[in-house]
Amino acid sequence: MKDQSRIWTAALVVIGDEILSGRTQDKNVAQVALWLNDQGIRLAEVRIVPDDMDRIGEAVNALRVKHDYLFTTGGIGPTHDDITVDAIAAAFKVPVVEHPAARKVLEDYYRDRPGGLTEARLRMARVPEGSELLANPSSGAPGIKLGNVYIMAGVPGITAAMLASMTGTLEGGRPVVSVTVGARAPESDVADLLRETEAANPGVAIGSYPFFKEGRYGSNFVIRSPDGDLARQTADQLAQGLREAGFDAVDGGL
Amino acid sequence: MKDQSRIWTAALVVIGDEILSGRTQDKNVAQVALWLNDQGIRLAEVRIVPDDMDRIGEAVNALRVKHDYLFTTGGIGPTHDDITVDAIAAAFKVPVVEHPAARKVLEDYYRDRPGGLTEARLRMARVPEGSELLANPSSGAPGIKLGNVYIMAGVPGITAAMLASMTGTLEGGRPVVSVTVGARAPESDVADLLRETEAANPGVAIGSYPFFKEGRYGSNFVIRSPDGDLARQTADQLAQGLREAGFDAVDGGL
Repeated sequence: MKDQSRIWTAALVVIGDEILSGRTQDKNVAQVALWLNDQGIRLAEVRIVPDDMDRIGEAVNALRVKHDYLFTTGGIGPTHDDITVDAIAAAFKVPVVEHPAARKVLEDYYRDRPGGLTEARLRMARVPEGSELLANPSSGAPGIKLGNVYIMAGVPGITAAMLASMTGTLEGGRPVVSVTVGARAPESDVADLLRETEAANPGVAIGSYPFFKEGRYGSNFVIRSPDGDLARQTADQLAQGLREAGFDAVDGGL
Repeated sequence: MKDQSRIWTAALVVIGDEILSGRTQDKNVAQVALWLNDQGIRLAEVRIVPDDMDRIGEAVNALRVKHDYLFTTGGIGPTHDDITVDAIAAAFKVPVVEHPAARKVLEDYYRDRPGGLTEARLRMARVPEGSELLANPSSGAPGIKLGNVYIMAGVPGITAAMLASMTGTLEGGRPVVSVTVGARAPESDVADLLRETEAANPGVAIGSYPFFKEGRYGSNFVIRSPDGDLARQTADQLAQGLREAGFDAVDGGL
């Protein structure tokens, strides 16, 4: 049973020299805040810290005990300046391990992509020991959940996709079910279908997360509803519509 | 004489429920960061806190002792929810007083304006005891300096005006020079090159910022150092490495 009578709070740690240098305009504070509102959770505090092990760890440890949830964005990519996993593992005093399911996701994702699953890309299967994965319908490499800490990508479109896949799963919000359908369809080609399918199924919201892979556009469509049967039924309907429009619809997303 | 050998740092506290609710997109982090960089000061940490006396005071007291400078934006307007002055006075354990020069500024500013100097507007002459004023060339009501804390307005255009009036007045080190090189290279393909180039050039930090444009992946690599010659030299080296790996390197970025 969810306790909807108390105020649930979350904090956000935005990680990245590019935000603190002013080079990149942050978009994640607002989008995480709006998403949390929809979950019935209040964003109570934000810290923006540099790509520095100690500073990340200090912020994470200070905030994860003060709030129901802590989210982080940034620093989980394939390059040398992506140290968030190491910093949070150190903050929790656990080792960094390769997550088998994350490795599998990356193997599948990079199988037919130029360059394949390089050593650098394999870094994105590293997690603090004891972590679960967060689905990434946009670009493969998963986010990470460790205790009440949710570790997400910093590129706003990918952050959005990770948030979408968590919609309704956190206590404090209504129980919303998400079902994902993928297709090699540019989202603009199926905009009408999406709108009509959503309109025909009151109580359902359909999110569209475009991607570009192997020289072709595609999209993952995330169908969300507090009514799980309705969400699954709507997903079937959308998949059927995509097939009629000449696209292969893939249950679970691409 | 400026001491250019050490790194000067600042923190920023962004104050406002509207930012934490996602209703308003923050613009001040980036503009304060860019301005500080020009002053030879590094923005080292940001906290975003709600309109709450204790939370503001806690953030201000935590950060003002850790950094050379602390800036705040927001909460110094004429309405009842503008509590920044009271919160910072409480944090410093000093009373709030009316600043005679601030009152004079407001009297002059509102003399010929509709409504004149109302009780509410006069609130903007209140400062923590011991404060100096920061000029506001945009909208009259001054900012406030108390010790190493610089209390500024939250409306980005007014924040910008207050910053502009302080340009060149703060002690700092050498501004950090940024040089950008772009390439149509997925960052995971060049992760080794980035790490090696950074390792070969102590004093330089290389950030990697992937993007997707016109149907192709690419990345901008930002080389940053207080030593401008070293930054440029490292950028040349990275561009050379990218070309050897078969990518067109574009000076200035893509």
